[in-house]
Amino acid sequence: MAASRILAAEGVLDGYGHVSMRHPGNPERYLMSRSLAPALVTADDIMELDLDSDAVDARGRTMFRERFIHGMIFKARPDVMAVVHSHSPAVIPFGITPVPMKATFHMAGFLYQEPPVFEIRDVAGWTNMLITDNRLGAALADTLGPNPVALMRGHGNVVVGPSIPIAVFRAIYTEVNARLQTTAIMLGGPINYLSPEEGDIITNKEPGDVGRAWNLWRTKALGK
Amino acid sequence: MAASRILAAEGVLDGYGHVSMRHPGNPERYLMSRSLAPALVTADDIMELDLDSDAVDARGRTMFRERFIHGMIFKARPDVMAVVHSHSPAVIPFGITPVPMKATFHMAGFLYQEPPVFEIRDVAGWTNMLITDNRLGAALADTLGPNPVALMRGHGNVVVGPSIPIAVFRAIYTEVNARLQTTAIMLGGPINYLSPEEGDIITNKEPGDVGRAWNLWRTKALGK
Amino acid sequence: MAASRILAAEGVLDGYGHVSMRHPGNPERYLMSRSLAPALVTADDIMELDLDSDAVDARGRTMFRERFIHGMIFKARPDVMAVVHSHSPAVIPFGITPVPMKATFHMAGFLYQEPPVFEIRDVAGWTNMLITDNRLGAALADTLGPNPVALMRGHGNVVVGPSIPIAVFRAIYTEVNARLQTTAIMLGGPINYLSPEEGDIITNKEPGDVGRAWNLWRTKALGK
Amino acid sequence: MAASRILAAEGVLDGYGHVSMRHPGNPERYLMSRSLAPALVTADDIMELDLDSDAVDARGRTMFRERFIHGMIFKARPDVMAVVHSHSPAVIPFGITPVPMKATFHMAGFLYQEPPVFEIRDVAGWTNMLITDNRLGAALADTLGPNPVALMRGHGNVVVGPSIPIAVFRAIYTEVNARLQTTAIMLGGPINYLSPEEGDIITNKEPGDVGRAWNLWRTKALGK
Repeated sequence: MAASRILAAEGVLDGYGHVSMRHPGNPERYLMSRSLAPALVTADDIMELDLDSDAVDARGRTMFRERFIHGMIFKARPDVMAVVHSHSPAVIPFGITPVPMKATFHMAGFLYQEPPVFEIRDVAGWTNMLITDNRLGAALADTLGPNPVALMRGHGNVVVGPSIPIAVFRAIYTEVNARLQTTAIMLGGPINYLSPEEGDIITNKEPGDVGRAWNLWRTKALGK
Repeated sequence: MAASRILAAEGVLDGYGHVSMRHPGNPERYLMSRSLAPALVTADDIMELDLDSDAVDARGRTMFRERFIHGMIFKARPDVMAVVHSHSPAVIPFGITPVPMKATFHMAGFLYQEPPVFEIRDVAGWTNMLITDNRLGAALADTLGPNPVALMRGHGNVVVGPSIPIAVFRAIYTEVNARLQTTAIMLGGPINYLSPEEGDIITNKEPGDVGRAWNLWRTKALGK
Repeated sequence: MAASRILAAEGVLDGYGHVSMRHPGNPERYLMSRSLAPALVTADDIMELDLDSDAVDARGRTMFRERFIHGMIFKARPDVMAVVHSHSPAVIPFGITPVPMKATFHMAGFLYQEPPVFEIRDVAGWTNMLITDNRLGAALADTLGPNPVALMRGHGNVVVGPSIPIAVFRAIYTEVNARLQTTAIMLGGPINYLSPEEGDIITNKEPGDVGRAWNLWRTKALGK
Repeated sequence: MAASRILAAEGVLDGYGHVSMRHPGNPERYLMSRSLAPALVTADDIMELDLDSDAVDARGRTMFRERFIHGMIFKARPDVMAVVHSHSPAVIPFGITPVPMKATFHMAGFLYQEPPVFEIRDVAGWTNMLITDNRLGAALADTLGPNPVALMRGHGNVVVGPSIPIAVFRAIYTEVNARLQTTAIMLGGPINYLSPEEGDIITNKEPGDVGRAWNLWRTKALGK
């Protein structure tokens, strides 16, 4: 619930997009709000789904049409505890141009491997662009592979992490990094991106303090 | 009233611009606020006009000088139930450059046919740029044709839809799409826009859930 | 007072910049706040100055160092009733590049004559860039000539009008126009600016309704 | 405390970054908050450190990992009374492109000498990009030299001043200047930057009134 509110307050989520977490007591289940704008989510809106994205106890509540993004990623990636899907505005242009997204600063060190771009046309031809079944969800999870972020062409992106705060942190700094990279490209000249070695150290060997930002965002979005 | 407030809160409408809806009980009439900044509109400010944009019961209230945009579109397009006219800031540059606006992501799928650009010079030579009579309104409606959006050179745009929430949704995502397209152009390289087939599916065959965003915007603009 | 607060709320004025009006009862005097960030001005802070920018009754209050901008323009331009000096951020780049500012849309029709750029080096060599005496103020007024706007290289701009609401309107739409023109230039291709004839009609023959925006800005900045 | 809140409110500091001041009674000590997002700092969070960045009285409070930036600059620069380290977003692209930052307007006159760029690779090879010990802090202080600002490649920047208000002023206008310079570069053509002579006058000979902006920012961030 806090994650939905934070991502809406930070401009990553618009009226659409969604956040999920793997069930802390049962790795074959995940938790996600009913179909609702993220800024409006309250604790009562949270539903429990299995990894095929069927509701455990729907009680008449409508589910997100794209919940299959989450179920199939949780199935493919046992290390993933949280998934964010958004229409993060600064990121979308990188999904429709040949320019790869790269890490411009240490806060986005997790982008040291260029995020892959999912092309739904390759899997399903002409569609409404949405991930509306498990086949499409599995194809997206396949493109994501072991990465923390995948772009979705003409749609948005998906960000994963080993916890809700880390997935939220990555979703926010993917958006910030996209703005910085766009500005650097406009300035012109070769860009001195983070090296893979630097990104690897930041992400895997000496991770920073996500809690400091999480506490700030939480306070801003929820008033503590 | 909610539409005016929402579009002001989302940055589409400035002190000018206006929203109208066809009268639910009489297709030969439409409803529109008196001349007032959209952010300040209350239910008491709503007036009833006929399709020639004469007030049914003016009671001394001043009408918008550009109300003829609305009347002539309602006359030409029986399918249209709501009209938004704005100075949507990210969109205006597309009306004064040779770059056509195109759909960058699924939320703006309704732009899969490039919006036409209305050039008032072709109709009336040098003017104050405003649509101040039925002849100009009819010319704009003619340029709009069957499209959901038309740009107005050096002025703004007009967006229509089969309901107030859909017209508001389109006005907001036309603005968002303009920002995304501008960024993609700055990044450089060929841009992979939505195909007409994808836009057609999204717009006409499998329309998304506008109500989810409408509820969010309404809550943000009106406090529920 | 309302003008200062409005321009701060609309992002035209930062901690610096100032607004003045000619004294309604004495054309040889003008009114201006004491030296204070515009967002903090209250009615008690307003001082009366003569056209040489000496205070009529200082009562120990500190005056703006750049008040000579205002006095010298009021002296040179009997038609001017209000002056705004700002560091309007989107406008400053146009004062330091060879790209002239031009009117992109009807709300900025008053820019149909390209605003001149004041170069303080031509008048005074190396300086602190400020207009700190009547000689510099007169030079700036000379560059302004009969125009509504002059840019100040590496500093900001000055905007004048026949009333406070019109000067504020022009200051805000000069900033908006700068953003739109920058975006249009980034899109590329020849830009279809407002013609001088269109700008002249909008500005001099059929002026629009400034009061509608003024009421909105006033409500937003002052809570009515 | 006020400085932290102001810089967060003005968009210079995100969840990270920090501000310090030299101890007013002991030049061998400095004051800095415990490890906390700047927007959340209160007076009780302030700690006292020596110039090797050891806490005088830690009482179990966690210190910033990058406090060595501050200690080593206070040691190298007796004239410096305040240090700001931030991820100022518009500035970061200038640290990763060959485009030097230059002063675009008088408010950023202190940039008349191009800020140097600190490259941590030259000192320590592949790292997590952070200044986590006194050796790295000393190297950064060495790059800073006598300047008010140094960029940190792929990380952020550091800004110093002879008082807290001046350091905060410089941090904010470094960010603003980066935005203006980026826009000027996008407009194209040779840019007429402030001359070194103008910058020197503004910075060293006739400094402006920092207090006017400080009072505004303080009021906005703290409600007075």
